[in-house]
Amino acid sequence: MKLKFQKIGILGKPKEPSFDKIIIQLADILTALGAQVAFEIDFAERLQTDPMNVFDLDTLCRVSDLLIVIGGDGSILHAARAAVRHDTPILGIHRGRLGFLTDICPQDISTEIPRILMGDYLEEPRFLLEAQLISAAGEAYEPVRALNDIVLHSGEIARMIEYELWVDGVYVCRQRSDGLIVSTPTGSTAYALSGGGPILHPSLDAIALVPMNPHTLSSRPLVVRSEALVQLRIPPETDHLPKVTCDGQVRLSTAVNDVIEIRRYPTPVRLIHPMNHDYFKMLRDKLGWGSER
Amino acid sequence: MKLKFQKIGILGKPKEPSFDKIIIQLADILTALGAQVAFEIDFAERLQTDPMNVFDLDTLCRVSDLLIVIGGDGSILHAARAAVRHDTPILGIHRGRLGFLTDICPQDISTEIPRILMGDYLEEPRFLLEAQLISAAGEAYEPVRALNDIVLHSGEIARMIEYELWVDGVYVCRQRSDGLIVSTPTGSTAYALSGGGPILHPSLDAIALVPMNPHTLSSRPLVVRSEALVQLRIPPETDHLPKVTCDGQVRLSTAVNDVIEIRRYPTPVRLIHPMNHDYFKMLRDKLGWGSER
Amino acid sequence: MKLKFQKIGILGKPKEPSFDKIIIQLADILTALGAQVAFEIDFAERLQTDPMNVFDLDTLCRVSDLLIVIGGDGSILHAARAAVRHDTPILGIHRGRLGFLTDICPQDISTEIPRILMGDYLEEPRFLLEAQLISAAGEAYEPVRALNDIVLHSGEIARMIEYELWVDGVYVCRQRSDGLIVSTPTGSTAYALSGGGPILHPSLDAIALVPMNPHTLSSRPLVVRSEALVQLRIPPETDHLPKVTCDGQVRLSTAVNDVIEIRRYPTPVRLIHPMNHDYFKMLRDKLGWGSER
Amino acid sequence: MKLKFQKIGILGKPKEPSFDKIIIQLADILTALGAQVAFEIDFAERLQTDPMNVFDLDTLCRVSDLLIVIGGDGSILHAARAAVRHDTPILGIHRGRLGFLTDICPQDISTEIPRILMGDYLEEPRFLLEAQLISAAGEAYEPVRALNDIVLHSGEIARMIEYELWVDGVYVCRQRSDGLIVSTPTGSTAYALSGGGPILHPSLDAIALVPMNPHTLSSRPLVVRSEALVQLRIPPETDHLPKVTCDGQVRLSTAVNDVIEIRRYPTPVRLIHPMNHDYFKMLRDKLGWGSER
Repeated sequence: MKLKFQKIGILGKPKEPSFDKIIIQLADILTALGAQVAFEIDFAERLQTDPMNVFDLDTLCRVSDLLIVIGGDGSILHAARAAVRHDTPILGIHRGRLGFLTDICPQDISTEIPRILMGDYLEEPRFLLEAQLISAAGEAYEPVRALNDIVLHSGEIARMIEYELWVDGVYVCRQRSDGLIVSTPTGSTAYALSGGGPILHPSLDAIALVPMNPHTLSSRPLVVRSEALVQLRIPPETDHLPKVTCDGQVRLSTAVNDVIEIRRYPTPVRLIHPMNHDYFKMLRDKLGWGSER
Repeated sequence: MKLKFQKIGILGKPKEPSFDKIIIQLADILTALGAQVAFEIDFAERLQTDPMNVFDLDTLCRVSDLLIVIGGDGSILHAARAAVRHDTPILGIHRGRLGFLTDICPQDISTEIPRILMGDYLEEPRFLLEAQLISAAGEAYEPVRALNDIVLHSGEIARMIEYELWVDGVYVCRQRSDGLIVSTPTGSTAYALSGGGPILHPSLDAIALVPMNPHTLSSRPLVVRSEALVQLRIPPETDHLPKVTCDGQVRLSTAVNDVIEIRRYPTPVRLIHPMNHDYFKMLRDKLGWGSER
Repeated sequence: MKLKFQKIGILGKPKEPSFDKIIIQLADILTALGAQVAFEIDFAERLQTDPMNVFDLDTLCRVSDLLIVIGGDGSILHAARAAVRHDTPILGIHRGRLGFLTDICPQDISTEIPRILMGDYLEEPRFLLEAQLISAAGEAYEPVRALNDIVLHSGEIARMIEYELWVDGVYVCRQRSDGLIVSTPTGSTAYALSGGGPILHPSLDAIALVPMNPHTLSSRPLVVRSEALVQLRIPPETDHLPKVTCDGQVRLSTAVNDVIEIRRYPTPVRLIHPMNHDYFKMLRDKLGWGSER
Repeated sequence: MKLKFQKIGILGKPKEPSFDKIIIQLADILTALGAQVAFEIDFAERLQTDPMNVFDLDTLCRVSDLLIVIGGDGSILHAARAAVRHDTPILGIHRGRLGFLTDICPQDISTEIPRILMGDYLEEPRFLLEAQLISAAGEAYEPVRALNDIVLHSGEIARMIEYELWVDGVYVCRQRSDGLIVSTPTGSTAYALSGGGPILHPSLDAIALVPMNPHTLSSRPLVVRSEALVQLRIPPETDHLPKVTCDGQVRLSTAVNDVIEIRRYPTPVRLIHPMNHDYFKMLRDKLGWGSER
């Protein structure tokens, strides 16, 4: 029988040694179905894997028809930033605790994986953001990507930063705050939610701008179209230079008069879900919204 | 010279008798430009107007090329719910205090009105919502419309209500709260903002669902696509029946097992702005975001 | 052996008929210990109780050494407002679901009740508030009491009210909002928490003033000393007259220029807890603060 | 005539050179009244001051009957942490923009200063907090003080920290957040307010514990008695060690299993206000609560 996905790349952070047998079980299932299996290099180290099937992340994304990520939401974020460049779909297996992005339970792989390889799945596009720093001299730096959020933030503790915000070339405001979270719908249930931002449904083409502990009490989260160009300028009189974080990792340092341009990445990443995937059920479970119907 | 708008309907709530000369000045400017002027019937009562040019609101919308509303945001909401059925554009003149929707200052009418009639203006579509009550027996009631928000709310003081929420036929959750605000981008700077909702840019095709003082502390505003069907069901064991408010006015009473269906109204209302209209400048002014650039 | 509490008054809202045997078990335990048992009149109706031992609530409070309340937090609030006038201590038995105020589980009555009657318990004072309406003409109405909160609130749906706030005779501000919650520490985990108020530890002599969905976005909960006199004035130009609710029940209607004076009730109510009572453990359980240590 | 304060110490951050003549005017007024004037050493550098009257901050506090601080709230915080050790009262003169703590306008010094020196003033005690780090080995470090707040915070950008919270030796919860603000009433209108904390009236003996962007959405600000002992423990499995900030300045670094003990400093600092000081008027002005009565 023809498989929907023939070449499967496996990666993740299993952490627990007890998880090794799940991985071996997964590889066995895939092989039995007639799929070819390859591993990401860091992941492979722990296993006694044939070095022929081991690749760095970027190559793995390129040669695979499907990535299977074992771990938490952070592992999906990591994989997605690479996979989006090769249009490789991603499936997530969690390690016992449901994630916002990893929705297959390890106990269910023997039933779910065959179904998915045979084409019985849901595919959901999720857009990423990219941030590009433009120096005062007009130099443009290499863009950096994020699936959850791009955060402008004081590099140091307990220091408010100041920035000017433009949307589509129109001046919005100047804010003093602990930082600004620029979040996708995917990121709206992560850090932006702790910061007081709204939940954006994944099908919504929108970006949330969530000020963190703003000095002006009437500052509020602002939601704009995902096609909008968001620009953040570091004002000249700043005495404390902010940093830029993508999905929780520091990627850029700023200087006075720098502009950070944030826009939607041209292509979305493709998330693969089992047929019974239910976004709102996941919200209820993860956020403790209580009484199931 | 050919005017862009030939027949002008005037309505609103001027309140202050001192405002009468502004209205007369406005009528004079319009007549001098060669436009025909008509008035809404309640509005006309205060003026010594030729009864030939006086109509009820619905007729006024039908026969006018442009509505000019004098008053606050509430007057625009009132006019918009009627004008949307006839595709009549609306221009707002405030009474001294800038509104979110009324952006022409009374002092500026002699310069702004001629420009706008000659075609020098911005047109901005703003979508409305409509709510339809479907009884347990399947009876569908006449839909009601709102430009700002549709609110499910206890009819009485200090009584939490309970409701089940579906989006596009998928169950979201059951909530106990003082109510639920279903807001357009236009309404996102009105009552929904007091309730902790995000600001939705007017160009965003989205609806915010904002629970009011929810019993479950992890409840958060949820933003969905404007095309989504929002359904609210009154559970059978409810001992307190909520009401439905459109733009602040009670329009529907509910019974147990009723479903309120809320969806985007098919056509938007057309707001007319002067060329220098700046949404973010208005936000800064109205919300006190301080230091202008 | 001498009992710490000899005469026990029982009241509450058991609701479930299955609960009747718990009540009979409770009465048996109390009688076996040598205590005398009496019942509140509404409560007694369901049981085949000797009419000699049945009293209205106020009399029951007066003749009892201890009130045992079976039900939810609402039943404790109801009992407390009466018991505080007679200095009668209150013990709460919940109906299966832990309350903020009812901390004995029905399964534990055979072990906990004897301990408590023998003096092995914690006693915790909780202060109440009283609200008194003073008319524009200076007439003072009968004060009303609340253990949780006194709420000034629109009597109708979706109507903002306006009021002026004074603390200890000093003008604080004029607010437009859905209402104002004046909460004790006891009430700070009830309605005030949904409204965005802080949690006040029960040992704190403080009152929280929590504006509900305030029009001014920089309005914030304000915490003052419990000895403070809080005054709310209905301004003359009000077109919508608010009502006053005590612990969720409407008690007062207002007129223009009325002043509502809210102050601490002179004596606290005495809550009785088992020795292992732990306020923070209850918060963790009720609010889902997760990982127990 | 006998002055209430004979020896006046002056310090602050005037910043603007244009402010020098205000300082000279202030010194002239004080001298004309018969007071002796001394200066803090950094402050004196800018002026051509007699070196006989120049002292380090601690000595200045010791030898002065009154400190006059010229600058913003930050200058008062700095002075208060030193003055509290010598029970020296503090008066604040702002630089044109009203502060929460500096309430004399530079234009008013010629009228206000004589009044205050002659005893016509309000004295308000404000308590400070002190934080002491206790290492896992039981070593106790030198305590550090704050008038506004003590903040446990990630030293780095966009890293949630984890801590366990105890109050008066009772375990409260374990939180994951950007940090925890432990605030006095004085600090409740500063950083804690941006973090969503309540306003605590200065006369209230209470401490607010405000979690910053907490991971658990049901986390809320908690207000406890000012006499409470607040303990924060860094759990053993922490991979990111938080820092402790006092009034915005990093003072302590932590290690795994360290406990930070926060308690009320034994004596309050004495703030001096003009007779017309009005706390709520200042709130209305600073927070834009609008319509003055």
